[in-house]
Amino acid sequence: MTKTEFAARTARFLDALAEQGLGGAALDNRDDYYYLTGYTGSDSVAVFSVRARTGWIVTDSRYAEEAEKTACGMETLLWKGDFAQFTGRVIKKLRVKKMGHTPHSLTAAFFQAMQAEAKAVSGWVDAEPCIAALRAVKSPAETRAVRAALDCAEKAFLAAKTRWRAGMTETEVKNDLEWEMRRHGAENASFETIVASGANASLPHAHAGGGIVRAGKMLLIDFGAIRSRYCSDLTRTLWAGDVPAAWRKRYQAVLDAQQAGIDAVRAGARGKDVHQKALDVFAARGLADKFTHSLGHGVGLAVHESPRLSPRSDKPLAPGNIVTVEPGVYFPGSGGIRVEDMVLVTATGAETLSSLPKSLDSMVLC
Amino acid sequence: MTKTEFAARTARFLDALAEQGLGGAALDNRDDYYYLTGYTGSDSVAVFSVRARTGWIVTDSRYAEEAEKTACGMETLLWKGDFAQFTGRVIKKLRVKKMGHTPHSLTAAFFQAMQAEAKAVSGWVDAEPCIAALRAVKSPAETRAVRAALDCAEKAFLAAKTRWRAGMTETEVKNDLEWEMRRHGAENASFETIVASGANASLPHAHAGGGIVRAGKMLLIDFGAIRSRYCSDLTRTLWAGDVPAAWRKRYQAVLDAQQAGIDAVRAGARGKDVHQKALDVFAARGLADKFTHSLGHGVGLAVHESPRLSPRSDKPLAPGNIVTVEPGVYFPGSGGIRVEDMVLVTATGAETLSSLPKSLDSMVLC
Repeated sequence: MTKTEFAARTARFLDALAEQGLGGAALDNRDDYYYLTGYTGSDSVAVFSVRARTGWIVTDSRYAEEAEKTACGMETLLWKGDFAQFTGRVIKKLRVKKMGHTPHSLTAAFFQAMQAEAKAVSGWVDAEPCIAALRAVKSPAETRAVRAALDCAEKAFLAAKTRWRAGMTETEVKNDLEWEMRRHGAENASFETIVASGANASLPHAHAGGGIVRAGKMLLIDFGAIRSRYCSDLTRTLWAGDVPAAWRKRYQAVLDAQQAGIDAVRAGARGKDVHQKALDVFAARGLADKFTHSLGHGVGLAVHESPRLSPRSDKPLAPGNIVTVEPGVYFPGSGGIRVEDMVLVTATGAETLSSLPKSLDSMVLC
Repeated sequence: MTKTEFAARTARFLDALAEQGLGGAALDNRDDYYYLTGYTGSDSVAVFSVRARTGWIVTDSRYAEEAEKTACGMETLLWKGDFAQFTGRVIKKLRVKKMGHTPHSLTAAFFQAMQAEAKAVSGWVDAEPCIAALRAVKSPAETRAVRAALDCAEKAFLAAKTRWRAGMTETEVKNDLEWEMRRHGAENASFETIVASGANASLPHAHAGGGIVRAGKMLLIDFGAIRSRYCSDLTRTLWAGDVPAAWRKRYQAVLDAQQAGIDAVRAGARGKDVHQKALDVFAARGLADKFTHSLGHGVGLAVHESPRLSPRSDKPLAPGNIVTVEPGVYFPGSGGIRVEDMVLVTATGAETLSSLPKSLDSMVLC
């Protein structure tokens, strides 16, 4: 990202604060302040002033150099004494009545100490929806970064998959895939890779365990890479051996539900409507009650962010949104199937960013 | 750990709450509630009642089965509506005036919503010091778990080290070591491995980057493994080629400071006194200002926990404490040296748990 892009983001954020009648905001979430300013440190708070049209990175000596180098248009303040109290005194000097913060990431202790020093602030307002709305619309540079994060995840999957066999442990598969992602340029996995064989695949949030990749069973793998700070998120359900007829049907239902979801992704469609399209496919096959989670979520600096493709999401999609479309069906005690791809909302429709094969034939391990 | 051990921990915790006049506590930190109850889920809150001598795991359907299986002596409550408000209503039913919580991990939003439902609670007290004091004293089973976490980190280091050469990137070394730790049974690295060559080693918290392992320079590696939930934490400073005379002296000073620190570790010694012993060695060699952090910290379920070996730590060490002893010297722009081992406080003195070689000769890469 260029300095110009960061400056433009900060400007949009300050405008959005002003529209809500806020005099400033204090952000402690690292993705948030990186997004706005380019500052790459952690253990810091970015304080913004609408009146001054700028802000300050409050941090300690470990990050002083990094803040000077990377925080576009922000001054650095090194806290002394107590971090939260110091931040409160920085806010006090802004002389504002209403201040934004991020209460879902800030700790209760930090907030209380900060608030006690900035008593003139009479209203603390959750600024997370405001910044989430900005982050949800990816710039071309961000879309390129997500494509790169997808690319190394997909290449790693294809390379590692050739080695996976019945009899390996879920943990071996996980370690193999995560190592390949790094070898292909990932900084890390974007979340703890899920590798679930057979009955373990019936738990949507199962992680890799001591379980064995069992012959004749599915092997559900939910994985992603971080590259240049941006995330990817994909799921494939492989098969160690022949696929029983009942599971073939279910697999096709998941592919069809996913396609219905992808077809519904476009600017103006509400998250709930896209979710419903996939649910309709399952309902027509008698599988509605097996689809137990929402259809998808935004991906960017965080692996889960706005917008959501869920029954509760009334917000219309906008060009630049990048979302997962990940229907699944789960049968407690016997297994589950999920297929997940990433889709970019464009001006005229949608583009599927991921390109990993998903036909059932291509999912069978040799 | 056995059910008996978890039950005994819960009993000690309830006693400690009672001593402070608290009627209960709500804990949202996963390590805390695992330590007390054995419950392995996340995204949950454990609510304890002193009067009822028991508690409840508040969670959602994803963790229902796990809570039933693993939470010793606790009932499971699945929240509906809003997680924080539901938790507040559970607390309200306890009919207590003073309640413990963990404001340094709980978010501001969760605390506010919980508090609003449990209005009869007039005092919220930080229960973290109380549980930290319990967690700081390791049982024999916990010490075995830490030894196992050390063992796989040490074996991985020795295996991977034979492959490290000048010209590799720091990231390649990091990926290689983390992969070897997993191959040796680690669930994960216990923190993001630090691999810093040459001048990068002068930043105590540098992470692996695109830097190259440079010939004739040091290669500082700070790493650890998680195994069965327990952490290890070690540092070695390797050399890619001949060690210049000035750095030989500094390396010896770090070893001597570490030995002085280890010799001072025993029950009754205060953290600050142990820190001072190492600092005295540096001071005698004119290096006091190059030792810019505290000497060590407790390690257990978390890689950083109580007790601290820092100038601000007045608390005496107790048998069962496991601490790192990790002096270092840093020369901005040219490099740094740190050596870190783990030490158990015993009834009669101390035992160094780690056994990785650290003589300068053994630190030179082939």
